[in-house]
Amino acid sequence: MSDKNKAWDGRFEEANDPVFESMNRSLAYDIRMYKEDIQLNVAWSRELARLGVLTEKEFSSIVKGLAELEVQINEKGIELFDKSTEDIHMGIEALLATKIGDTAKKIHFGKSRNDQVATDQRLYTLRSIDELLSLLQSVMKSIYTLASENNGVMMPGFTHLRQAQPLQLSHWLMSWFFLLERDAQRLKDTLPRISIMPLGSAALSGTTLAVNRESLRKELGFAKISDNSMDGVSSRDFMLELMSTIAILSGNLSRMAEDMILYSSEQFGYFELSDKVSTGSSIMPNKKNPDSLELIRAKAGRLLGNYTALFTVIKALPSTYNKDLQEDKERLFDSLDTIKQVLHVTQTTLSTLSVNKSAMQKSIDPLSFATELADYLSAMKMPFREAHKITGKIVLDCIKEQKVLTEMTETDLLKYSPQFGGIGNDWASHELFLAKRDVYGGTGTSSVDRQLERAANVLDTLF
Amino acid sequence: MSDKNKAWDGRFEEANDPVFESMNRSLAYDIRMYKEDIQLNVAWSRELARLGVLTEKEFSSIVKGLAELEVQINEKGIELFDKSTEDIHMGIEALLATKIGDTAKKIHFGKSRNDQVATDQRLYTLRSIDELLSLLQSVMKSIYTLASENNGVMMPGFTHLRQAQPLQLSHWLMSWFFLLERDAQRLKDTLPRISIMPLGSAALSGTTLAVNRESLRKELGFAKISDNSMDGVSSRDFMLELMSTIAILSGNLSRMAEDMILYSSEQFGYFELSDKVSTGSSIMPNKKNPDSLELIRAKAGRLLGNYTALFTVIKALPSTYNKDLQEDKERLFDSLDTIKQVLHVTQTTLSTLSVNKSAMQKSIDPLSFATELADYLSAMKMPFREAHKITGKIVLDCIKEQKVLTEMTETDLLKYSPQFGGIGNDWASHELFLAKRDVYGGTGTSSVDRQLERAANVLDTLF
Amino acid sequence: MSDKNKAWDGRFEEANDPVFESMNRSLAYDIRMYKEDIQLNVAWSRELARLGVLTEKEFSSIVKGLAELEVQINEKGIELFDKSTEDIHMGIEALLATKIGDTAKKIHFGKSRNDQVATDQRLYTLRSIDELLSLLQSVMKSIYTLASENNGVMMPGFTHLRQAQPLQLSHWLMSWFFLLERDAQRLKDTLPRISIMPLGSAALSGTTLAVNRESLRKELGFAKISDNSMDGVSSRDFMLELMSTIAILSGNLSRMAEDMILYSSEQFGYFELSDKVSTGSSIMPNKKNPDSLELIRAKAGRLLGNYTALFTVIKALPSTYNKDLQEDKERLFDSLDTIKQVLHVTQTTLSTLSVNKSAMQKSIDPLSFATELADYLSAMKMPFREAHKITGKIVLDCIKEQKVLTEMTETDLLKYSPQFGGIGNDWASHELFLAKRDVYGGTGTSSVDRQLERAANVLDTLF
Amino acid sequence: MSDKNKAWDGRFEEANDPVFESMNRSLAYDIRMYKEDIQLNVAWSRELARLGVLTEKEFSSIVKGLAELEVQINEKGIELFDKSTEDIHMGIEALLATKIGDTAKKIHFGKSRNDQVATDQRLYTLRSIDELLSLLQSVMKSIYTLASENNGVMMPGFTHLRQAQPLQLSHWLMSWFFLLERDAQRLKDTLPRISIMPLGSAALSGTTLAVNRESLRKELGFAKISDNSMDGVSSRDFMLELMSTIAILSGNLSRMAEDMILYSSEQFGYFELSDKVSTGSSIMPNKKNPDSLELIRAKAGRLLGNYTALFTVIKALPSTYNKDLQEDKERLFDSLDTIKQVLHVTQTTLSTLSVNKSAMQKSIDPLSFATELADYLSAMKMPFREAHKITGKIVLDCIKEQKVLTEMTETDLLKYSPQFGGIGNDWASHELFLAKRDVYGGTGTSSVDRQLERAANVLDTLF
Repeated sequence: MSDKNKAWDGRFEEANDPVFESMNRSLAYDIRMYKEDIQLNVAWSRELARLGVLTEKEFSSIVKGLAELEVQINEKGIELFDKSTEDIHMGIEALLATKIGDTAKKIHFGKSRNDQVATDQRLYTLRSIDELLSLLQSVMKSIYTLASENNGVMMPGFTHLRQAQPLQLSHWLMSWFFLLERDAQRLKDTLPRISIMPLGSAALSGTTLAVNRESLRKELGFAKISDNSMDGVSSRDFMLELMSTIAILSGNLSRMAEDMILYSSEQFGYFELSDKVSTGSSIMPNKKNPDSLELIRAKAGRLLGNYTALFTVIKALPSTYNKDLQEDKERLFDSLDTIKQVLHVTQTTLSTLSVNKSAMQKSIDPLSFATELADYLSAMKMPFREAHKITGKIVLDCIKEQKVLTEMTETDLLKYSPQFGGIGNDWASHELFLAKRDVYGGTGTSSVDRQLERAANVLDTLF
Repeated sequence: MSDKNKAWDGRFEEANDPVFESMNRSLAYDIRMYKEDIQLNVAWSRELARLGVLTEKEFSSIVKGLAELEVQINEKGIELFDKSTEDIHMGIEALLATKIGDTAKKIHFGKSRNDQVATDQRLYTLRSIDELLSLLQSVMKSIYTLASENNGVMMPGFTHLRQAQPLQLSHWLMSWFFLLERDAQRLKDTLPRISIMPLGSAALSGTTLAVNRESLRKELGFAKISDNSMDGVSSRDFMLELMSTIAILSGNLSRMAEDMILYSSEQFGYFELSDKVSTGSSIMPNKKNPDSLELIRAKAGRLLGNYTALFTVIKALPSTYNKDLQEDKERLFDSLDTIKQVLHVTQTTLSTLSVNKSAMQKSIDPLSFATELADYLSAMKMPFREAHKITGKIVLDCIKEQKVLTEMTETDLLKYSPQFGGIGNDWASHELFLAKRDVYGGTGTSSVDRQLERAANVLDTLF
Repeated sequence: MSDKNKAWDGRFEEANDPVFESMNRSLAYDIRMYKEDIQLNVAWSRELARLGVLTEKEFSSIVKGLAELEVQINEKGIELFDKSTEDIHMGIEALLATKIGDTAKKIHFGKSRNDQVATDQRLYTLRSIDELLSLLQSVMKSIYTLASENNGVMMPGFTHLRQAQPLQLSHWLMSWFFLLERDAQRLKDTLPRISIMPLGSAALSGTTLAVNRESLRKELGFAKISDNSMDGVSSRDFMLELMSTIAILSGNLSRMAEDMILYSSEQFGYFELSDKVSTGSSIMPNKKNPDSLELIRAKAGRLLGNYTALFTVIKALPSTYNKDLQEDKERLFDSLDTIKQVLHVTQTTLSTLSVNKSAMQKSIDPLSFATELADYLSAMKMPFREAHKITGKIVLDCIKEQKVLTEMTETDLLKYSPQFGGIGNDWASHELFLAKRDVYGGTGTSSVDRQLERAANVLDTLF
Repeated sequence: MSDKNKAWDGRFEEANDPVFESMNRSLAYDIRMYKEDIQLNVAWSRELARLGVLTEKEFSSIVKGLAELEVQINEKGIELFDKSTEDIHMGIEALLATKIGDTAKKIHFGKSRNDQVATDQRLYTLRSIDELLSLLQSVMKSIYTLASENNGVMMPGFTHLRQAQPLQLSHWLMSWFFLLERDAQRLKDTLPRISIMPLGSAALSGTTLAVNRESLRKELGFAKISDNSMDGVSSRDFMLELMSTIAILSGNLSRMAEDMILYSSEQFGYFELSDKVSTGSSIMPNKKNPDSLELIRAKAGRLLGNYTALFTVIKALPSTYNKDLQEDKERLFDSLDTIKQVLHVTQTTLSTLSVNKSAMQKSIDPLSFATELADYLSAMKMPFREAHKITGKIVLDCIKEQKVLTEMTETDLLKYSPQFGGIGNDWASHELFLAKRDVYGGTGTSSVDRQLERAANVLDTLF
């Protein structure tokens, strides 16, 4: 016997296997697009009315019924729907029918779930990107504020997680700011490829109704209409692009989180995390754990997994709609939800962070001033490779004889090379160190000031 | 003010940020391990009683309380728990306290959530593998049955999706059987590395209680106890191994599904899918779509994504427990749920499949008998490369002159080489074709019969 | 004893383990950036000369020496370098020293391999994208040409690999064109984030030389200079973005390849691949295999793997340079090489394709006209759901009674519904079918003509 | 005109496009299987001789020719082959023909490159696993030796990269040993699924020659013969299993490397890496960078990428051989080469490591003894949750009042709870700490001694 709840069972004689049916059913996750689906149905019905397929009265009752439904779904969620509902599109049509009767069965004329779901997803995604940009802006603002407040504070700079050269904390912070600026640009660059309306593509070959796709586009707020119906129902490149963009953003935040986990550990002690974003241990009363930062770090893996999943689903899929594409939704929605959480918690962590300035400054390894010596010799025209070797020797002697490099006087240095003449005894002062790095982009005082200026401008204009 | 629901807030002065708190909370997904967590708590409390930390009365009330809780959670699920509950471990302890009072607060002595969650996950996973093996066995049985029923039916064999040589349908089916046999072996091989009990590792350095880990192991049903507490709380290699095993199994099924999607298409017409596992179109009344097979195909991407996600989370993580490991659960559970669905639907699809024998046999391309000619010449001692070239020429002539290769007589063939002498006119009969391929593993009649025998034996002994 | 070939062994007392040394050595793959590295060294030396660190004579000898080296490396490749050479940067400096002596040892003053490699990679990548865009344009031209030449040819349209509704072949082709247009846009969108010059960042904190970064930028052809030296040496987001863009492009081509593998198979017979892009079998003389399309399909997996690899390397890496970043090169270069091959072979395959028009048209399943009936009833104001059910019944009867749907007359149809009145007997003609799908984006004649016009415009303006 | 170097061009009339040809050609990487291919050809020719297809004289000349070729390929590599050679199989046959003439053209009778490449790959892989196991054993031995030599040394134990509880260094080391033991088991578990001989499967339907597959199996050293020819030529599940196993192993080593990068940094100072596995900076003379550990860490990403790539290539591929499978080789070989490097360098790093015992012991945070207090109260029958809260309060007071927790006397503690009575003043001694953790698996003295015993046993018996 045919299952009379299906929208497509005309030619079918047997009911579906229940496990298959539940695997096939997407309502649990596509319900979150109910607003978009309703908006689409209103716009489509307006065209049906314009074309005379619906009377004005029918159209009014549809609009009214859908408006009521939107309120009800918002309140009751999935409980509202019959348990056998396949997806949000069939669900809304069925619920509308309970309200306004057979007229509801007219709204699917000329469209297909293939173009409908593609349109809903694009609408939903466009709205999500607005949220993401706003959250990302907050994170960037927090970085900017922290950098402004701590401008001038020195800390060790690391390469290979080994002390390399001193830095300004504000310089470290701005390195994340400018990285995230590119993430924001990438997010914005996805928009023209998302804001394309597939509606009117029907199943694959285009609708048979003489709808005005330009009117539909305007009502739904898309930037353009799709050029080809097969492409319209089939392409998920916009999702992959967005999911990769989100994953890269998350990967960038995972790096900042890694630094902050290290810098807030007992061994570094540069940062203290707020209780707001820390947790304790169920067994060890001494623990204060950076769970927030660890979760930020971990989520990059999840987001890569989502991208990998959808990419692999889509790879080598024949053209137009295949059921495989149903897999797009859960991965996309999870990516969007995850990055929102990550951005929020990153912002909270940054805006409640305490900086232990003296610990940072004390922690600077005197050996990290070695490049100053090599540079001095080079400026004295010694070939850099030779200067590097001489300084390497000085470093080795400091380690073996437990001397503090920065305390070496000109006299001490002259033993290694006559060209140290004139270097003076304060060659390793922070002031001198910064003054020598004022080319734009460097950690010098005026360079960082200019970075902050540019950052303020980015915050004003990018978003 | 400190949030008084936390198990670890002794040293904390400020409440958590709500978004961070919800990101940090795992109850929504770790609740599915409630049975394992209760079982663990019973076993652990038994040790606490043996060691005199609990009185017998306290122990009894704990056991009774937990038994009641198990029934209640089974009925009401997450509704039962306070909304601020962090995870299933804290949730069960808190609910137990509402039943039996302060005694509940004693059950965490000597253990940590670190060893507790690792133990729960291993228990849960062990049980899931039993289910998977049973479902996989059903799939293999369906393949075996279909092959037995259709033994002797000929079909085209493809390489590069081009007709290559004819085959028995049963041979095609058995190729999947033996592939899945290896999946079953792989699944079983994961068991010794999962059935290791971390309980007793506490947070990282081992419990301070003189528990008898052997007794705990027996009660919980593990094969062995972990050798090292840091490894015990930290390692998720068993999950990655299982998730890769599941992904590979799913990838194998995606290939079978791909063949079946093709073979049940109008262009091939070899199979007819049951209505039980097909769907229609909301717009095109003619459609009968193989959604079941498409979903089977797609899920391989999802399962690869889960593996990639967890792998990336774990890569380069410092030793012992880091909060990043919380990400393991959703990916693991999703992999388990997904593969169960996939196996079930695969079994249903196979066991309700109709085979269109005549379509298969008619579809065999006469050109796919070309190798028989090259082989004949080679058997006549002509170097194979030369034989291949002569036959290539015959093929080209057939295409150009629209002749049917299999209708060429000995006389026709002799025009190409005198060594065709004696080949006869029935050189392209199915009987002869099969008879020549009876080396074990080939598509010949007795070879396939022996494959079926071995398959029956595998079904009896492997599971 | 210290190994005297290293640029950094001043403080070292023991030679490297040989396996570690070979793992650490990147010359074998970074040699391909020799032109970029030489160009950078010329620009940097010009600044050193301007600042008086080099005399004009020294600068001239450097420029001359590097120019000679470029010719020599182009000719002899890796053979030119000492076997122990660590990377292209050290290799060029060492070879230059053999030419011009100690002056060569001055060129590294004020820069670091950290900013040098980041700059080389960006330069190299920018040039590669030009090539990619040009190849992609050729592919799009081939599609456009094929569509123009075959405009008006009908073929079956598929969803779920089941016949759905007829289409124009040119419509199918244009669906790929507009997908690839977005790939081209994506590729172009990566440029502003790649064309950023890190040079001047030195190791991590900025160069100590008062170089004019704007002059360097102009000489090297970058669009802007990096804002922050730590970001400059550390960020590989531009690579991930590009590698994802390439992977998505490849994934799109894998779908087109999949369709073409199917359509050129014996079962479909729509396309015939040229011998230029086909291969045979070493054993079966009848085979003509679509290896080109299979390789195009497969490479999407490889490109996803490259992205996954680099993403996972970078995730959670501490800030600035870590040796892990050496892994970026092989994956990036492989992605660039692979997509170039893929685009070239796609273009050749398309431009040498034969279309079997009559096979396409004959292959159209009469049942794929069923939607026309449902639409007719809907246009007669019957609710679409009811129209769908009635048509489903007609389809089922056709299958059971082996009737040809498209041959049903108005009289036949009236038995199912009085509202079929007026439909006429040629309701299933191709002309009518196309005429009803002329809304832009559909497969109707004028819609496809307009798509072709827009495509011509894209080819003129996008690249 | 047909290209006369192809083994399959009988039916072809046009030469291949050169870019396609180079994309199609695999000699550059499959040449590394020349020994396996020669061995296979000898075994197959022996069967041809037994069946009378080859005379004894022909067989002898083949064997002699192949033996010579093996020597020559070993010496000259790819230079030996004609530039147009497609793959190692065709290359060896062609080179043999230059030596022994037309007889060489007989060796391909009854086999196909499809079964030949599958057999070669399995043989090659089996040999590689032997090497991997031997390298892994060396790594495990180094860990064991380091643990034995440093047994008794205390260090801080971390969770969430925060000090948690003290540990023995030998306990930390053994945590990696037992993790790697499972990697070794996994590697060994792959063997039965690799050691299956496909030879005799021919192209897809089985060989037409009455070869004795058992004899072939014995000669080639496989554990069993494949049951089904389609499965034999088509399945790459064994590669995915191995590549996942290798990736997981590498992921485990990336975690150990991460710990070691941290522990050898200035901020921790627990380890000093040997110069053998460290590098310097081209600009900063002070740097000594842990490049070895960073590369070990990074390679896990590369290995995940290889797995992802091959998985995605294989997913949804139709049955039997498709050209896509050519992608398997580069990914597999790269995984094998990479893990060999990683294991070697890990072993060298471990066996040359210096341990700074006093830095470790000094670095232990007094607060990491807090659990001892909570446990004491619990042992006094206070509910653990209450004990945890009281200890949390003590910790908070220590932080606020800058007191050293471990210096608190019984008197001090009694102010927080009367149940501290009897705890004594040496409650935080290392001896007591270890004595309380002697349950097997813990960091206690006798537990670690027993772990070392078991490890010695594993090294004797597992490999």
